[in-house]
Amino acid sequence: MINEQFKQMLGAKSVIRELSEYATKRGTEIGYDNVFDYSLGNPSVPCPDSYTEAVLDIHQNMNPMEIHGYSPSTTLPSARQAVADSLNERFQMDYAMEHIFMTSGAAGALAHALRAVTKPGDKVITFAPFFPEYIPYVTGCGDELVVVPANTEDFQINFEAFKDMLTEDVMAVLINTPNNPSGVVYSKETIQEMARILQEAQDRFGHDIFLISDEPYREILFDGETYTYPSKFYDNTLSCYSFSKSLSLPGERIGYVAVNPRATDADILVAIMAQISRGIGHNCPSSSVQLAVSRALDDTSDLSVYETNMNILYDELVKLGFNVVRPGGTFYIFPQALEEDAVAFCQKAKEYDLILVPSDSFGVKGYFRMAYCIDTEKVRRSVEALRRFIETEYKR
Amino acid sequence: MINEQFKQMLGAKSVIRELSEYATKRGTEIGYDNVFDYSLGNPSVPCPDSYTEAVLDIHQNMNPMEIHGYSPSTTLPSARQAVADSLNERFQMDYAMEHIFMTSGAAGALAHALRAVTKPGDKVITFAPFFPEYIPYVTGCGDELVVVPANTEDFQINFEAFKDMLTEDVMAVLINTPNNPSGVVYSKETIQEMARILQEAQDRFGHDIFLISDEPYREILFDGETYTYPSKFYDNTLSCYSFSKSLSLPGERIGYVAVNPRATDADILVAIMAQISRGIGHNCPSSSVQLAVSRALDDTSDLSVYETNMNILYDELVKLGFNVVRPGGTFYIFPQALEEDAVAFCQKAKEYDLILVPSDSFGVKGYFRMAYCIDTEKVRRSVEALRRFIETEYKR
Repeated sequence: MINEQFKQMLGAKSVIRELSEYATKRGTEIGYDNVFDYSLGNPSVPCPDSYTEAVLDIHQNMNPMEIHGYSPSTTLPSARQAVADSLNERFQMDYAMEHIFMTSGAAGALAHALRAVTKPGDKVITFAPFFPEYIPYVTGCGDELVVVPANTEDFQINFEAFKDMLTEDVMAVLINTPNNPSGVVYSKETIQEMARILQEAQDRFGHDIFLISDEPYREILFDGETYTYPSKFYDNTLSCYSFSKSLSLPGERIGYVAVNPRATDADILVAIMAQISRGIGHNCPSSSVQLAVSRALDDTSDLSVYETNMNILYDELVKLGFNVVRPGGTFYIFPQALEEDAVAFCQKAKEYDLILVPSDSFGVKGYFRMAYCIDTEKVRRSVEALRRFIETEYKR
Repeated sequence: MINEQFKQMLGAKSVIRELSEYATKRGTEIGYDNVFDYSLGNPSVPCPDSYTEAVLDIHQNMNPMEIHGYSPSTTLPSARQAVADSLNERFQMDYAMEHIFMTSGAAGALAHALRAVTKPGDKVITFAPFFPEYIPYVTGCGDELVVVPANTEDFQINFEAFKDMLTEDVMAVLINTPNNPSGVVYSKETIQEMARILQEAQDRFGHDIFLISDEPYREILFDGETYTYPSKFYDNTLSCYSFSKSLSLPGERIGYVAVNPRATDADILVAIMAQISRGIGHNCPSSSVQLAVSRALDDTSDLSVYETNMNILYDELVKLGFNVVRPGGTFYIFPQALEEDAVAFCQKAKEYDLILVPSDSFGVKGYFRMAYCIDTEKVRRSVEALRRFIETEYKR
């Protein structure tokens, strides 16, 4: 019989998806150019030519049996080695091929990482604001997601609440830096303090607590900042990555888990993830995509447009009197709404063809998210709409 | 902490994989050409040129944003429509796009189909001999796999045992025709009788029993046979397909689930599978692979080599006195061993550099599987080794 659990999920449509569908529908009425659609976190720049060239070269010059053959269950050795080399160079780590597991995007990475280090019934902590898909990812493992309330001062970590909620049955902590939806990058101090608390809790409880670090926005940093790689500060770290944003390949479903070589059981964690694959029907990302991405690892799309857009929006939001933390990366900004009810605020914005996502589904009330992965020209035009919206509705 | 359940799976290495690793190792000693490796079901012919041309054309001429953008959670409409059209034409079905869900190979298809129509604790029936990965697929859903003993007469279905085992808590039946490992294709009579029994059980128990039909070998048929498409005979059928064998693309992880339009809740089953994806980290197969495969749907690799190989082996096995059912398709043959203990038989065969897989892991004792997806020239040479093996060990 139809599984009722999943059937019931059909009713609870994602707020983001509903807004995006509204934007598309509105676009058919007034022209999509006139809809300021800040709903979806979909890259707005093409993949680098190096990726396309890699695909063409592979399919023109390699033996089809080699391109399209089964990957080993632990995924393609050449891709794993390329990722290890790239991470070692960039973050001065010492990964070997054995620590890398190629996955179907960050969703696949998180599915494997979570299952590898928790068992059904365990608790997993994350920090608000958080990406709402963490709920199905965590509950899909049979785990319970525990959300630490936001530090709305600067959207770093609310350490007091974290320490209170880090009980003995928490087996993993899931972070996302740079953060969707806040755009904030955890500072070195934040990572260090979190690592110190986790280390102390491991000692006190006498069991491992794994840090699962979701890093798909790692390459989109502003103001010349460099990335504080969490795994450098805490040995029991599984770094989960996706090339969706850095190479603008969201549809290709390609990413990885990198197991810190000093993590507990680091030598068998990838083999365990290969076993997990058998039960969830994952069985490796596409072999040709693994091959192509291995050749474009250190490239990115032209990501500068996101910083340009951020600057325009941030300056305007400040000018309009919004309380907003300046994003350090990603293509999101997360201002406080001008009324307590963010849903009502975003509802009013729709009348100005501004599609904003209320913060409620990110685990915080009273804020909204703008995904500014759209053309800069449109961002500029949207500023006019934003001004009209605020002046008409809130400054009369 | 490391998940002990998956850690324990590391110990239980697949017999097939162990034999394949032995063959590779032995190959480094005496040259791989001299190892008659019948262990792995890996296609031995390249993909058709039409697939490679589709990949090149897509990457040379389409907008990268369209190639690599996110698929909707129900997967790419153009791919779903192409699959529906192809199945309708081939099997006179009436699928709409809404009934097709693109997946990461047959493993992904089975993971979604099983979760969609069962809940943890339900029973799923399959028929021996069966593909051993059905165990993690089914137990990974929290279901219990019930194995109906083989009908060793002709490897069609053992209906008496099936009727006895089809109890009220069975919610799905998983079949594989053409069958791995027997190579047997279920006859129209078999499918009809199975459908009749299932229909009768549905009526008696007052609940749906879904047929999950795993069909990756559907295109590899011998002796000019045509395929009896199970879904035509039983409405509650989810057909699970993979292009791994027909297009020789096992590494690309591309397949689908086709929901019979007359199945219970046929209109929402794909949406339910999209919800299931969120929990298991699947989130669509690669977009570029979905696009490319849509253009090569009705093509196949040159599959004739498998029939050539089958004929050589079948004739020789009969000549040597083996009890063997003539395969109707696939690239497997499943003869009875010449001693009761198939493991001992296959162990002796290794001394002649014949790598045969004992039947125990397929749920039957006393048989062995040969995967003849290897060069015909090597099949011919292996016949000599087979003769020497049998004459020396069993006809002295």
